[in-house]
Order: sequence, then C-alpha cells, then structure tokens
Amino acid sequence: MNKNIIPLMIACVFLLSACQTGNPDTKKTETVNKETETTSQLSNDYYSAIITDGAYQTSLNRGITLGLNSNVNLKAFETGLMDLSQGHFSTDSYFFQEGQYVDNATTSKWLGRVSEENPTGLNPEDNGKLEPDERNPIYLDSLLEQDYMVQKGDGFELGGISIGLAMNSVDYYTKKEYGSKYETKISQEELLAEGKKMADKIVQQLRETEGVGDIPIVIGIFEQSTEDNLAGGTYISEAVSEKGSTSFQNWKSINQKKVIFPTSGEESNELSSFQNFKAEIEKFFPNLSGVTAEALYTDDQIVNMKISVSTQFYGESEIIAFTQHVAEKAASFLVPNVPIEITIDSINGTEAFLAREAGETKFYTHIFD
Amino acid sequence: MNKNIIPLMIACVFLLSACQTGNPDTKKTETVNKETETTSQLSNDYYSAIITDGAYQTSLNRGITLGLNSNVNLKAFETGLMDLSQGHFSTDSYFFQEGQYVDNATTSKWLGRVSEENPTGLNPEDNGKLEPDERNPIYLDSLLEQDYMVQKGDGFELGGISIGLAMNSVDYYTKKEYGSKYETKISQEELLAEGKKMADKIVQQLRETEGVGDIPIVIGIFEQSTEDNLAGGTYISEAVSEKGSTSFQNWKSINQKKVIFPTSGEESNELSSFQNFKAEIEKFFPNLSGVTAEALYTDDQIVNMKISVSTQFYGESEIIAFTQHVAEKAASFLVPNVPIEITIDSINGTEAFLAREAGETKFYTHIFD
Repeated sequence: MNKNIIPLMIACVFLLSACQTGNPDTKKTETVNKETETTSQLSNDYYSAIITDGAYQTSLNRGITLGLNSNVNLKAFETGLMDLSQGHFSTDSYFFQEGQYVDNATTSKWLGRVSEENPTGLNPEDNGKLEPDERNPIYLDSLLEQDYMVQKGDGFELGGISIGLAMNSVDYYTKKEYGSKYETKISQEELLAEGKKMADKIVQQLRETEGVGDIPIVIGIFEQSTEDNLAGGTYISEAVSEKGSTSFQNWKSINQKKVIFPTSGEESNELSSFQNFKAEIEKFFPNLSGVTAEALYTDDQIVNMKISVSTQFYGESEIIAFTQHVAEKAASFLVPNVPIEITIDSINGTEAFLAREAGETKFYTHIFD
Repeated sequence: MNKNIIPLMIACVFLLSACQTGNPDTKKTETVNKETETTSQLSNDYYSAIITDGAYQTSLNRGITLGLNSNVNLKAFETGLMDLSQGHFSTDSYFFQEGQYVDNATTSKWLGRVSEENPTGLNPEDNGKLEPDERNPIYLDSLLEQDYMVQKGDGFELGGISIGLAMNSVDYYTKKEYGSKYETKISQEELLAEGKKMADKIVQQLRETEGVGDIPIVIGIFEQSTEDNLAGGTYISEAVSEKGSTSFQNWKSINQKKVIFPTSGEESNELSSFQNFKAEIEKFFPNLSGVTAEALYTDDQIVNMKISVSTQFYGESEIIAFTQHVAEKAASFLVPNVPIEITIDSINGTEAFLAREAGETKFYTHIFD
C-alpha cells in the first residue's frame, strides 16, 4: 500500500527560514517537526489524505457545514467539491487536506450580513423588511475549504485550494425568535450572480492570507436543495483563479441535476426501467415500505443511481432470498453501464448491499448476516 | 441468470391423483396450478429460493422466532440452520423454501409446557415452584422449520426438512406479571439432553404430517446466547433421521463459538492482531466511539470476523480518508485468509463498508456518499 513517512526536521529548517525572508514565491510547509504520512488510495476516484502524527487534520472551520438544509446537502457539498477539484488537481499527484487557511472566525464573518460591525460580511445588509419578497435574503449559507497538497522534496506543500459556496435557492427565516418559518425564494440567476460577486471578494482576502501565495484557487457555486428534497444539491458553476489573480474570470457552468424516482422523474428510459424493477421486486416481497432512487445527470446523461429499498424484517431467509432476487432483477431491468448502488434496509439498519461500480458489468452483493 | 418458470398444470393432475390413492411413497408437490420459479443464486454459499406466482412464501409459523433473546440470535438461528443444512442438502441441487409443514398452532403447542390441556407441549410441566433453582425452566424457546426442495419433472417436491431448536442457557422469567426478571440457569449438558428428547417427539409427529413422508429430516440444537451478549448463539449438536425413521441416532456435536473482541477474547493471535488494528485506527481518528469484533470459531479455528466501527460523523472527507486508512490497516494487521466484514457507522447509518470474501486477498470497499 501507498504509505509515505517523511522525516521533516531538516526540510523544515530550510523552508521556515525561507518563509521568514518574506519571499512571496515560497510556500510554507504545513508541518513542522511532525511526522507526515498519507492514507492509501482506494482508487483514482479518491485522493490520498495527509495524516500528521498519525492523525487526520480536521478543517479550521469544522462544523460550519452542519448548518446546511439536510444531511444529503452536506454530503453533496463536500463530495461535489472533491469531484470538481479533480478537474484541476489530479488524484495522482495531489493529496487531500481539510481546509487550514480559512478559520472559524473568518467564516462566521463572511456568512454574516455586511454591516458597520461586520464589513467583510458577504450576505446583503439587513434592510429592516420582514416580508418574503421585500427583505434581503441570506444568499450564502455555508462555505467549505479544501486544500490540495503536493509532495515537495521531503515534505508536502500547498498546491491548490478549492472553495465551495453553498447558496440558498430558498432562504428559510422566522420573523421573530421561535416564530413560524417563512421562505424567500431566490432564482438560480440571482444566486449565481451573487455567488460570483462573493467569489471575487473571497479570493482577494485569501490571497492576503499567510501561506496561500499565488497557488491556483478553484471556486464552485453549490445550489443547495430545499429542506424537503430527498436529493442533495449540485454545483452549478465553477471558475479558477491562477497565478495569484484576485478575481475569477471564465466562469464555466455545470449542467448537473439530481432526480428522485419515481416521484420527480420525467418520462425517460431510466425512469421506466426503474419502475419495472420496482414492480418486479414489490411483487416478490409485498412488505416493502419503499423503493426510491436518486439519479444523477450530467449534461442530461445519467451518471449514477442510488437505490434505497426499505423492508420490514421478518427473517434472514427472506432477506437472503430477496437479495438474490433483487440482484437478478437489477441486472436485467436497470439501465446498463452506469454505477448503481442498492441498499436494503430494515429498522435494524442495512441488511444487504449491492453495487455495480464504474466499468463493471456485474453487481457486487453482500448480505449482513 | 438461473430462472425456471415451470408450467405445472399437467404434472399436478398426475401427482394429485397419486396422492389421493394414499400411496405412502408419493410426495405431494407444493404448488397446484401455480407458476413456480426460483431466485437466482449469488454463490454456492446460498440456496436459490422457490418463488410461487412471483412471491416468496413465508413460513407457516412466521414470527415465532421473534421471541428469541436478541436480533443477533434470530439471525444466527436462521443462517446457522441453513449452513448446517448444506452438509445434507447441497445448494447445487436443493432449493430453499420456508417451513410449510409445522404451522403456528402446532408450534405454539410444542413451545408450551406439557399439561392435560397441552399434551404435545415439549417444555416440562409447571411444578408450581417460583425459585430459580426449584422451578422447571423453559428449555425450548423457539422452533424453526426449513424445507429443502428438489426439482422433479416439471415441478418441485419436498426433498428434506431441517428443524432448528432454540434452547435456553438462561431462562428469563417473572414471578408475577410485570414483576422483576429472574433467571434460571441451564447447563449445556442439560439443555442438550432435553433437546435430544424433544427431537424424537418432533420427528414422530412430523412423520405423521401430510406430505412429509420418509424424506430426510435434519435437526439442529441451537444454544441461544444470553440477552446481554453482543454475539448470537451457535448450533451445538445435529442429527439426521433418514428413510422414514421416527427417532434420531448418531448425534454429532458441533464445536463452534463466537467471541466478542476485545472484551471477551482470550489471548490469541486474532485478538492481538485485532487490538493492533484498533489502536492504529483510533490514533488516526480520535472520535471513534467503538471498535468491536465478533469472531466465529469452528473446532478452535477462526472462521470469520465481523468488525463494527462507530464514528461521530463530521463530514464526508473525513469518512473517505478514514475508510482508506481502515482498508490499509485491515490488510496489514488483521488475520489473513478468513472472510472479514467491516462496517463503519454513524448516527446516520452505515457510512462505509469493507469486506474480504472467502478466497479473496483484497478488501472490497464501498463508501456511501
């Protein structure tokens, strides 16, 4: 397995002196007198992560993303930024580290409304109005930093930063504390325009942060899904600031959507194949309490599908027979050539799991007995 | 995939007539004017199951096993009987069906105490005593029937029955309704002797049940684990009644045990390798709330291991890095050559899953993102 333990003592002495001369081309190493290694890499889909003194370093603004509308948004916000980063920082030569440059205090200020007391606030000032279509909404709900490190001599140094901006398409608010919940709807056009303005302000401040220097900074605008949506949000636009630039040009829009089957899917091959699959397995096992899927589309092509089957659990024999049946029906009914994950759950947790990974034709199956 | 749809109309006319003549050598087919198929088979470890008119047939005494001490006992009771059955009914030529001969009423009578009103009760009579060591305990807690079918002409017929007897090593009882819980302890010797006596009574009644005839009947005595045990029980003895015999001879003891690491394991290679693995992953991720394993031993050799890792969930990046770390440490620290299953859970459910299947050297890994 890929494991690098690197003694950094000597390297750091040199690098720290270099930093102290104030040379703007020198990037600071992350670790001083610490033993740095990396996790193994399951596949090219994932980055190896940096481990310092045997422990994983969590982000400086840890916990900030817990404010998102739902757990599915939280996961989509994080993994989406990693996916997007792979277009700029290859998983072969970059190592992952949670954000170590934007701390909690800075993030809180940025997420606040701009005011005399909070001049760096990225959300609009409070205009004193309370009605959904009169007030200034909160556009930016959360912010995520990811650092992409490169190996340099005996150590690692910062090679790039990715920033995710989680924008609201609906801003939920109350008129008074503990009062009823109201909603201000925000069009995608509006949240995109606001996100782009914020991105420039962020990169200006980031460039002034010690240790960032002129490395590439990637930014992604994430439109989080609403509270009642079973699917998480998606990134809708991205840009990169290179060579120390303090603004973003050349925004590139990302055409991605997540669709929940069978409830929100439009007429499609994928939907009808899913419905046939659903009918087949429900016939077999009348006690299913739910069969739903989340399908991800990029440029209107299906990219992957996650299916969740909820069962009443009566016995292990039933689960085994059912899982074998699902494996067969999945192979014959579901769309070919895209990764599919199927979980079979009961109140006791996950009972069985099936997955066809990218590039595979067969389903891997595991029954938790 | 292995799928057989068999039109049974003609075959049944013949078989039913044969049954009606009362010829004791003729076995009744299960399905009349019904379309019978079978599930696919994931591997030789599992039986294909019979499906009738597209639906899985549940057992006649469904729900009875829910009375066991714990969910892990329930799973072990069922899958253990399937494993044991594989020694008598090969998964290549036999098909699984939940029990269709011992109905709910019969099972309830058998599980009751013997009395004038319940002459077929298999548990001892109530001797009126209430003290743990004076009363007659309930030995038999639950009963499971599994049918093993064979293909015959255009249909399926009964090829064998397996019966599991779940015996108490501790009988939990109350002296009055809703009162405190007391325990009568039962030695393994005693529960084995009682189970063997019950087995003969059961096979006598089974042979008289319509449709059973002289097929082989396998019986397994299961010692269920106590309520506070994280591991399920094991089968401790088995026997087979062949050629219509109404008793069991040649009981064969089964030397199996389940050990929970690190709490109940004795000094062993497996335990110390597990402890090293645990230490490595806890160092990486200080927020782990638990790392435990269940190891199964047959004839004092480790057969498989199930590891459960509970984490606090902060973010997806952490889970990805942690899973990659676990995959590496599992490969380098855990015992080689036995199947291992590792689940990484948070309060949101299963976050990641790793498994090394029988005969494999690499871990399969899946992250639920």
